[in-house]
Amino acid sequence: MITHAILKELEGVVGIDNLLTSRANLVCYSYDAAGQSFMPDAVVLPANTGEVSEIVRLANKYRLPLIPRGAGSGFAGGSVPVKSGIVIHLSRLNKILEIDNENLIAVVEPCVVTGVFQDEVEKLGLFYPPDPASLKFSTMGGNASTGAGGPRAVKYGVTRDYILGLEVVTPTGEIINTGGKTVKRATGYDMTRLMVGSEGTLGIITKLIIRLIPLPEGKKTMTAFFRSAEDAARTVSDIIKSRIVPTTLELLDKNTLACVKENLGMDLPEETSAMLLIEIDGDPLILDRQAGKIRDACRKNGSIEFNVAGNKEEADTLWKARRGASPSMLKFWPGKISEDIVVPRNKIPGMIRRLDTISDKHNLTIASFGHAGDGNLHVNIRVDKKNAQEMKRAEEAIKDIFRATVELEGAISGEHGIGMSKAPYLKMQLSETEIGMMKAIKKALDPNNIMNPGKIFD
Amino acid sequence: MITHAILKELEGVVGIDNLLTSRANLVCYSYDAAGQSFMPDAVVLPANTGEVSEIVRLANKYRLPLIPRGAGSGFAGGSVPVKSGIVIHLSRLNKILEIDNENLIAVVEPCVVTGVFQDEVEKLGLFYPPDPASLKFSTMGGNASTGAGGPRAVKYGVTRDYILGLEVVTPTGEIINTGGKTVKRATGYDMTRLMVGSEGTLGIITKLIIRLIPLPEGKKTMTAFFRSAEDAARTVSDIIKSRIVPTTLELLDKNTLACVKENLGMDLPEETSAMLLIEIDGDPLILDRQAGKIRDACRKNGSIEFNVAGNKEEADTLWKARRGASPSMLKFWPGKISEDIVVPRNKIPGMIRRLDTISDKHNLTIASFGHAGDGNLHVNIRVDKKNAQEMKRAEEAIKDIFRATVELEGAISGEHGIGMSKAPYLKMQLSETEIGMMKAIKKALDPNNIMNPGKIFD
Repeated sequence: MITHAILKELEGVVGIDNLLTSRANLVCYSYDAAGQSFMPDAVVLPANTGEVSEIVRLANKYRLPLIPRGAGSGFAGGSVPVKSGIVIHLSRLNKILEIDNENLIAVVEPCVVTGVFQDEVEKLGLFYPPDPASLKFSTMGGNASTGAGGPRAVKYGVTRDYILGLEVVTPTGEIINTGGKTVKRATGYDMTRLMVGSEGTLGIITKLIIRLIPLPEGKKTMTAFFRSAEDAARTVSDIIKSRIVPTTLELLDKNTLACVKENLGMDLPEETSAMLLIEIDGDPLILDRQAGKIRDACRKNGSIEFNVAGNKEEADTLWKARRGASPSMLKFWPGKISEDIVVPRNKIPGMIRRLDTISDKHNLTIASFGHAGDGNLHVNIRVDKKNAQEMKRAEEAIKDIFRATVELEGAISGEHGIGMSKAPYLKMQLSETEIGMMKAIKKALDPNNIMNPGKIFD
Repeated sequence: MITHAILKELEGVVGIDNLLTSRANLVCYSYDAAGQSFMPDAVVLPANTGEVSEIVRLANKYRLPLIPRGAGSGFAGGSVPVKSGIVIHLSRLNKILEIDNENLIAVVEPCVVTGVFQDEVEKLGLFYPPDPASLKFSTMGGNASTGAGGPRAVKYGVTRDYILGLEVVTPTGEIINTGGKTVKRATGYDMTRLMVGSEGTLGIITKLIIRLIPLPEGKKTMTAFFRSAEDAARTVSDIIKSRIVPTTLELLDKNTLACVKENLGMDLPEETSAMLLIEIDGDPLILDRQAGKIRDACRKNGSIEFNVAGNKEEADTLWKARRGASPSMLKFWPGKISEDIVVPRNKIPGMIRRLDTISDKHNLTIASFGHAGDGNLHVNIRVDKKNAQEMKRAEEAIKDIFRATVELEGAISGEHGIGMSKAPYLKMQLSETEIGMMKAIKKALDPNNIMNPGKIFD
C-alpha cells in the first residue's frame, strides 16, 4: 500500500500539479474501454523520460505496481490497475519530434494521437497506414503496446510493421534505445519487436521511431451486398486470388446490418444478409481496372448490388454502415460482449458457420463484423448483464468461440491484445512451454514484477 | 569433450549414416563464409523436428555446445563451432510444405534454398521479396536466423518482415509454435520476432510460416553514371523525395568500378566515379512515368549517362557491374576485409566522406558498394593478410568505420548479423543495459548456454 512518504517522493519527481490522489481523479484512471474498474493508489503525469525513469525506480524501491496509460481506449483492460498501484499517464509526452521525408521516418512521443500523426504526415505526401478504429483518440504508444491493427492491415500490416525503434524505460528504470532509423539492422535480439505488443509489462515506451511510406495517389471505395455471409466471404477469397490486395475489405453480417439499418435508417437491398466494404488505393491509372475485377468477383458470388463511389462524399456514404456498426450495436445491445478473433482469411466461411452453431447451442444472438480481408472478426454477443443465467451462457459461448478459432488456426486476439480480460484464455492459445518462456522473459527483465502486473498472464 | 558413449547416443537418434565424426567430414563443418575455422566434435543430420528435439536434450544432458547450420553462407561466422561441440546440420529439413494462394502464405522447412522457394512461389504469381546475394544457396532458416536482407529491402523490407510464425525447438528441447497463419495476432510477446535474428542462440528453427504478396506485373531496370559518389547519393535522396520507392537502388563507388572494369572488361563513361543501378516494379502502366522521374533526378544531379533496359537481356547487361562487384573485388583483392554497415539513407554522402578520410588516415584502399536505397553499404578494405602491419592498420580502420557509422545513427551490421566476427564490437552499438537485457533473455531461455555459444555476445 502507498504511504504519505512515498506520495511525497512522487511529488518531488513530477511536482504537486502532476500527482493525482483525490478519489474523483483516481476514478477517472480506474477503467478503460474494457469497462472494468479497479482503483489506483495514485496517478502521476511525468513531463519527460527522465521523470518516467525516476518514477520506475521509486516503484521498484517500494515494490509498487506501475501501470502505463495512454488514452485508455484499449478493449482488453491493458491499462486498468487490477492490482492497484501507480498509474503513469504519459499524456504530457505528446509531441511529434521529427518527420524526415528523406529517410521516410518520423520520431514521436507515446501520447501523440494516431489520427493527428496521420494528418501531419499526409500533409507532406507521406503515409502511416495503421488505422485502429480508435485512431481519433488512441495514441501511438498505446497502439504499439497493444499491437493495434485496423482495416488497412490486409494490405499494409499492423502497427508492429511500422516501428523501427523505441526509447524505453526498462522495468528497473534504465533508459534504452532499441532499433533505429534504418529498416535494416542486424545487431542482436529484436528488442523493438519484443516491446511492441507487450502491453506495458516489459517497460514504458517514451519515444517511437516510425517507418513511413509515400501517400498513395488515389483511392476507390466500393460496397457489395450478398444473400449470405458465405457468399461475401467467398468473394473475399476470389478477390485475393485475382492478385488484388485491397486496402480494406470489411464484412458486416446480418445481425450487424439489422442494427445499422434500425439505427441509421439505411435502406438495404431486399434479402441482404451480408455486406462487403472494399477500398483500394494506389495509382489512379490502375484503380479502375482493379475495381472492374472486384466487381466481377462480387457478381460471380451472387452479389445483389454493387456500388462504386465516384467522389469523396459518395465514399463517405458507402462507409456509413461500417462506421455505424459498433455505435449502432451499442445502442440496441448496451450490454454486448465484444470479442476480437482472427482466422486465416479462407477460414472465415468456416468460422461464420461455427458462430451460427454456437449461437443456436447457447441460445444467444451473435453479430459479427470486421476485417474479413485479414481474417479479423469482431464478434458481438447480445447479453443483458443483469441476467446472470444469460451471462453464464455467454461465458460458455466465448469458450466455444475461442476453441473454434484455435481449431481453425486462428488467434483469440487479433488486434486488441490479451490485457486483463483475455488472460484467463491464453492457455487455449499458447502451449504451457510458450507461456513459460514468456514468463521467464518477464521475470528476467522485471524481477520485481512491477510493470503492469496481472496482465497477459493469468 | 564428447565421449564415445555420447556419440553412440547421438547415433541412436539420427542413425549411423547421419552422424559425422571423421576428421575429413568435421573440417567441412568447421568454417562458413566468414572464413574462420574451428573444429566441431561431431556433426548430426536430423531427419525431422523430433530428432532435433532429442539432440537438444542430449546436448543439455551433457552440456555440449550445439551449433545449428544451414548453408554456412553467413559472413559473420554465425554457424562456426567456436567452442567446438555438435554441429546440427538441418539439410534434410528441406521441403516446401505448403503454398497457400488464398491466404498468401507458405510453410517451409529451414533448409529450403531461398532462391528455389522464390521460383516456386513465382510460378503461382506470388512473390517472396527478400533477396540476399547468397539466395542461390542460402536457406530460409539461415536467412531468418541472421535477419538477412538484400537489394529489394528499400521497397519490400527484410526477411524479418515476411515471417509470420515459426516452429522452434527450444534450448531445452521442447517444440513450440510461435505466431501463425495470420498477419494480425496479439497474443502475448512476439516470440517469432525474438527468434528471428537471434542467430541460433535461442533455439532451432524447424519450420517457417512465410507471408507472400502478389508478384508485381512489370519491372524496369536503369543505370546512371556520376562524377562522384556524392552526386549519386544525392540522386538517391531526390528519387525518394519524389515519392518513388524503387525495388532496388544500388551504388557502386570508384574503386569498386575499377575492379569490375578490369575484371569484366566493361567500358564505363569517361570520368565515372560512381554508378547507380535502379530497378522499379509494379503495374506496367506506371513504370514509364516513374522511370521518367528517376531520369530527371539523375540529370539534376549531373549524371554522365543514363540507361533504361528495354528487355530482359538489356536488364541483365545493366546488372552485370553490380553482380560482378563482389567476385571482381575478390579476384584482385583476395585478402579483402568486408564490412556490412547501414546508415540512414540521407547520411550516405556523409558516410562516404568519412570513409575517404579513414582510408587516407590509415593508408588503406577502401571500396564500397551496396544498397544505397536503404543505407546499407558493403565496405571492403584491401589488405594483404600476410602483412601484419597492414592488418593492424585495417583493424584500426574498422573501429573508425564502426565509430562513424554509430555517430551517423547507423548500425555496425545491416544484414549479416553479429555472429562471431562482430561480437567484439557490439559494445560500440548497444548500451551495457541493452546487452545486459539480451543476455538476461538468453540465460532465461537457455540456462545451460548450449545454443550456439560464443556468438553475438563477446
